[in-house]
Amino acid sequence: MPLNKIRIVLVEPTHPGNIGAVARAVKTMGLQRLVLVNPKKFPHYEASKRAAGAESVLQTAVLTDDIQSAIADCTLVLGTSVRDREVSWPTLTPNQAAADVMGHLRQNTVHQVAILFGRESSGLTNGELALCQQQISIPANPQYSSLNLAAAVQIVCYELRMAAHAESEQADGQKRSLSTAELRRAAATKQQLEGHLQHLQQTLESLDFIKSKPPTMLMRKLTRLYNKAQLTVEEVQILRGILTAIQDRETRS
Amino acid sequence: MPLNKIRIVLVEPTHPGNIGAVARAVKTMGLQRLVLVNPKKFPHYEASKRAAGAESVLQTAVLTDDIQSAIADCTLVLGTSVRDREVSWPTLTPNQAAADVMGHLRQNTVHQVAILFGRESSGLTNGELALCQQQISIPANPQYSSLNLAAAVQIVCYELRMAAHAESEQADGQKRSLSTAELRRAAATKQQLEGHLQHLQQTLESLDFIKSKPPTMLMRKLTRLYNKAQLTVEEVQILRGILTAIQDRETRS
Repeated sequence: MPLNKIRIVLVEPTHPGNIGAVARAVKTMGLQRLVLVNPKKFPHYEASKRAAGAESVLQTAVLTDDIQSAIADCTLVLGTSVRDREVSWPTLTPNQAAADVMGHLRQNTVHQVAILFGRESSGLTNGELALCQQQISIPANPQYSSLNLAAAVQIVCYELRMAAHAESEQADGQKRSLSTAELRRAAATKQQLEGHLQHLQQTLESLDFIKSKPPTMLMRKLTRLYNKAQLTVEEVQILRGILTAIQDRETRS
Repeated sequence: MPLNKIRIVLVEPTHPGNIGAVARAVKTMGLQRLVLVNPKKFPHYEASKRAAGAESVLQTAVLTDDIQSAIADCTLVLGTSVRDREVSWPTLTPNQAAADVMGHLRQNTVHQVAILFGRESSGLTNGELALCQQQISIPANPQYSSLNLAAAVQIVCYELRMAAHAESEQADGQKRSLSTAELRRAAATKQQLEGHLQHLQQTLESLDFIKSKPPTMLMRKLTRLYNKAQLTVEEVQILRGILTAIQDRETRS
C-alpha cells in the first residue's frame, strides 16, 4: 500500500490540539506515519482528545530533534506552504504533487516520502524549504490565507488518497457488485490507465508527433495530466475510442 | 465571483468549536456564506475562538429552523457523506462535484448552490439526502472514516477553489510578472480551456467520431474530464498540438 510509505512531518508544532487533529486527518485518509520535530508539548491530553479514534497515530509517532533525522531515509521530500509567499520557486498544487508522489512510488523510483508542514505561526523557513526537492503550495484566499495546520494536512492527505484510490476502489466495487453504470463511474485501475497511455503513445508515434525514442518527457507530462484527472472507467473507454478512431484513419489513408 | 454563489449549510451541528473551524475553512478557500440549521449552541465563544480571523463568516451566518428555508432559493443542492454508506445511489467525488458546480455557475444554468453537511455523529438522514440533486462522497479510510466536520468542509471548499481558480491565478500571474516557465505551469484560463474543447470537438467531427449534432453528452463528459484535470497552460498547448497533428493528417489524406 503506497500510502504507508509517506510520512507527515510536523516541524515545531506549538498547539497539542493541532497534533491530535493532524493524527485524525492522517488516519481518515489511510495514512499512518507521523513524525514530530521538536513539538512544544507532546504527549498532551489535548492531542489525545482531538485525535478522537486516531490515537494509534499518536502512539506510533516518531519524535526527533531536527528535520535531518526526520527525513534521513527519504528519497523524496516535499515542503508545504500556503500560496502567498514572495519566493517564486517552482511549486506544485496538492493535486499535482499527489500525482507525482504516487507515480514515483508505483514505478519504484522512490521508496520513502516525507511531506513537511511548518509552524502554525510562520510555516517553514527558507532554509527548511531548501531541504525539499518539491514545494507544495496550497491555494488559498489571498485576503485570508490562515489555513489551520490540520486543515492543510487534511487537504494534502486527501489528494494522496484520491491519487492512491483507483485500485482499492475497483476492488471494493467487485465486492459490492456494482451496477454497470456504477462500474463505469468507478476509478480506472492502474492497468487501465497504463493501457490508455500506451495506446496514446502508439498513436502519437504513428502521427509522427513523437519522433525521438524514448519519448520520456512528453509522456511523463501526459501521464501526470491523466493522473490528475483521476479517470473513470468510462472516461478511459471514451479516450481509447478516440485513439482507435485516429488509428483507423491512419490505416485507411 | 462564482464562489459567492455557494453556501455551506451545516445541519444541526453540535459543537460550537466545529462551527468556528468551518468558518475558517470556508474563508481560507474564498467562500463566505454559511447557513446554520438548528445549531445546538450558537453564538458561542468556542465558535469565535476557533474561527480565528474568520469571525466575519460567523457574523454573517444565517440561522434557520429547517433545511427547506436554508435552500429555498437554490437551484442546485448537494449533500455530503463519507464513503461508507450502504445506500448505493449515484455519488460524485468532491473533485467531480466541484467541476460540475463551477460548470453550472459559469454557464448560468444554476444561480445559487447549497452544499449540505450533516451532524457530527450521524451525518445527513436519508430524508435530508433526498432533498439533494447530487451526493458528494468524500473518500476515506474504510477502517476509520471519522472525518471531522470542518475537515470535510475544508476538502469540499478546497476543490471548489481549485475549480474556480483558473481565472484568478492567470490574473495574479500577470500582476506578479511570472517567468515563462511559471506561466506554462499556471492554470489555464477558462478561455484557453474552451479553446481546447472547441478544437477537440472539431477534430472529433472531422474524424466522424461525433456524428450527431449537437454532440452534447460526449462533449459534456470530455468537459468534465478536462475540468477535473485542472489543466495548466502548457498542458493545453500539448493537447492542442496533438489535435493539430491529427488534423494535418486528415487534410493530407
